[in-house]
Amino acid sequence: MSRRVTYNQIAGQKAGRIEALSDGVFSIAMTLLVLDLKVPAQNLVHSEEELWRALSKMFPSFLSYFLGFMTLGIFWVGQSTQFSFVKHSKRTYAWIHIFFLAVVSLIPFSVAFLNAHIDYRSAIALYWLNILLAGIGLHISFNYAINHHLTNLHLEENQIIAKAIQKRIIMAQVLYAVGAMLCYFNNYLSIGFILLVQLNYALGLTSNR
Amino acid sequence: MSRRVTYNQIAGQKAGRIEALSDGVFSIAMTLLVLDLKVPAQNLVHSEEELWRALSKMFPSFLSYFLGFMTLGIFWVGQSTQFSFVKHSKRTYAWIHIFFLAVVSLIPFSVAFLNAHIDYRSAIALYWLNILLAGIGLHISFNYAINHHLTNLHLEENQIIAKAIQKRIIMAQVLYAVGAMLCYFNNYLSIGFILLVQLNYALGLTSNR
Amino acid sequence: MSRRVTYNQIAGQKAGRIEALSDGVFSIAMTLLVLDLKVPAQNLVHSEEELWRALSKMFPSFLSYFLGFMTLGIFWVGQSTQFSFVKHSKRTYAWIHIFFLAVVSLIPFSVAFLNAHIDYRSAIALYWLNILLAGIGLHISFNYAINHHLTNLHLEENQIIAKAIQKRIIMAQVLYAVGAMLCYFNNYLSIGFILLVQLNYALGLTSNR
Amino acid sequence: MSRRVTYNQIAGQKAGRIEALSDGVFSIAMTLLVLDLKVPAQNLVHSEEELWRALSKMFPSFLSYFLGFMTLGIFWVGQSTQFSFVKHSKRTYAWIHIFFLAVVSLIPFSVAFLNAHIDYRSAIALYWLNILLAGIGLHISFNYAINHHLTNLHLEENQIIAKAIQKRIIMAQVLYAVGAMLCYFNNYLSIGFILLVQLNYALGLTSNR
Repeated sequence: MSRRVTYNQIAGQKAGRIEALSDGVFSIAMTLLVLDLKVPAQNLVHSEEELWRALSKMFPSFLSYFLGFMTLGIFWVGQSTQFSFVKHSKRTYAWIHIFFLAVVSLIPFSVAFLNAHIDYRSAIALYWLNILLAGIGLHISFNYAINHHLTNLHLEENQIIAKAIQKRIIMAQVLYAVGAMLCYFNNYLSIGFILLVQLNYALGLTSNR
Repeated sequence: MSRRVTYNQIAGQKAGRIEALSDGVFSIAMTLLVLDLKVPAQNLVHSEEELWRALSKMFPSFLSYFLGFMTLGIFWVGQSTQFSFVKHSKRTYAWIHIFFLAVVSLIPFSVAFLNAHIDYRSAIALYWLNILLAGIGLHISFNYAINHHLTNLHLEENQIIAKAIQKRIIMAQVLYAVGAMLCYFNNYLSIGFILLVQLNYALGLTSNR
Repeated sequence: MSRRVTYNQIAGQKAGRIEALSDGVFSIAMTLLVLDLKVPAQNLVHSEEELWRALSKMFPSFLSYFLGFMTLGIFWVGQSTQFSFVKHSKRTYAWIHIFFLAVVSLIPFSVAFLNAHIDYRSAIALYWLNILLAGIGLHISFNYAINHHLTNLHLEENQIIAKAIQKRIIMAQVLYAVGAMLCYFNNYLSIGFILLVQLNYALGLTSNR
Repeated sequence: MSRRVTYNQIAGQKAGRIEALSDGVFSIAMTLLVLDLKVPAQNLVHSEEELWRALSKMFPSFLSYFLGFMTLGIFWVGQSTQFSFVKHSKRTYAWIHIFFLAVVSLIPFSVAFLNAHIDYRSAIALYWLNILLAGIGLHISFNYAINHHLTNLHLEENQIIAKAIQKRIIMAQVLYAVGAMLCYFNNYLSIGFILLVQLNYALGLTSNR
């Protein structure tokens, strides 16, 4: 029976294709954000001033566009950091990333939802839930990669890197949760806090050495 | 005349580009699923409760989103398993995959169709036909790769791997067909059964050694 | 002055990125075709029979979906055949492919146009113009690659391969032109002829040795 | 403490994935342009002549399609030229490109905006702002790559190449700014001038040695 091979032993062993699928999903999710920016209809604009007014009314939509791009960027950087260590794959590891990507490509929806209903706490809760689930996906997948020796790291190094990455994920998620809870005081305070946390990670303001 | 070269001898010999095209098609098909999730219109929502109600009404759409993602994920894992063995390509092999991809990118349509008309058997039949055709595509392409020596496997190994993969495809398709037939009793039973089969493959619950 | 470097000498020298951009454009153009398949609205369907009727009315749209996929597939195979020889790139070569891709991503539009207005000759003319321009793009780019030594082929081999590929492109375009002209008799005859030529290339029925 | 590793030291070190994400974003932004070409509705067309008239009315939209494709092509060639030298990456470098891509994927929006409101200066200002920001993104990212030794170039060579590339970017941006200012005389003059500058770069008419 040693010559029998089951599907699960051989399925999904190329890490490169998970990266390719992920780059596809991330880039499409990012680019689809632009579909929420609607060009003001020609028949509603009769002067330069009206066009400026129409453009300035779109300001929240532009903000939401950049928020979406940045949120996706954060998880893309997170995932590609992980893949700079991961060299092999396994069926289960591939599936963890597929579920992660399913959560990631919900981000354009949550951001559009937040943009449309920013005055309601449910909108903040939904957006927060989305980034929480994405964070959990990253955490689980990296844990799996470490525990199943899919990385190119030696054992001790493994643990140091793993600690740095996991600490970053947990720290960020704690800050996002604090931000989300601020909506009990004020929604704009809440979303502003989350935005600052994200900008901090994007711009690398803290702990940059 | 031995110096004459026909187009078919030289066309489509890079397996890598079929993978790249496929990753593109799969990731777009996955990400397009999010376009079926419509943000509730601002003028229809006047309170936190109404927003929650609007969100909970979207529950079947979320389910359908994850069903679509998982179905696409199953065929993506199936195809990438195949490509972890295939090293060369041929024009005919490329065309089998193009037809396979044409079937794969119909999945968002069949899933949206199922979501809209779940009470009708035609919707289940259409969804089932779609996964049947995708399964047939995978089966034919792997057969072709084995028979035309496009893999990096030695002969005996070839047959063992091929058996494992083909057995998996046929087994899954038999289960899907059983699930589809259950719609003669009840549509939700039918779709629930298909979902369980897919979850089983995605989570690797059975035959995982 | 020999130390001065101009931008054109160094721009666009990686053939791999043209391939990546092309695979992206082709896979998106293919997947966008599914957006033309609209799920019949729930409120218009009250029985299994009505759903079947709605589905069968969609038959021309399904046909047009596969026509679009196959047309894109033909040019994708054509381009990837070219890239199995091309190893270097140049700025001008990159730009020829960008214009080629601009024509390629019009194909979903021409196919949808043809589907909506199949009774009018302009629709056939537009579709034919699109595949003519794509063929010209392929022809020019391969000529450029040969003449500027961007391939991995030796000189004599170059000419043999080049002849085979260019002959294929011209042969196909002559047949498409004949097909397009048939619209002076009948539009369905015209489109049927073009379809047969494409199927012949896709399935490799003739000259397959 | 030398054994402690911070996240920023290890994040985003693969240049290849930035390229893959970028090729994704560029190819989607290019292909999404086709969604602005709407097939004339069947019930509005009753004769061959009406269809021709409908098609010719679309002429500005086709022009705007090619303008968008060319604008995206220019920045794609610009970025891929940069990446033909860049071999390593850093977290900050990855983020500069994410912001660059956020600007790039606004291009379909600015072009559609320009197409709809070409008679207003704000439309030209918006389009110009978009290409200005994209140019700044390219400039900053290449500066960063040179200063942080992410390229495969030796020091002196570095400076020569860097000068050639940066000179090209600044020259182009000066010409675009001149073009944008021409809108104080006439909008079509302004957009025509910008178009000519772009065509010059695309076709490589000047400084081609």
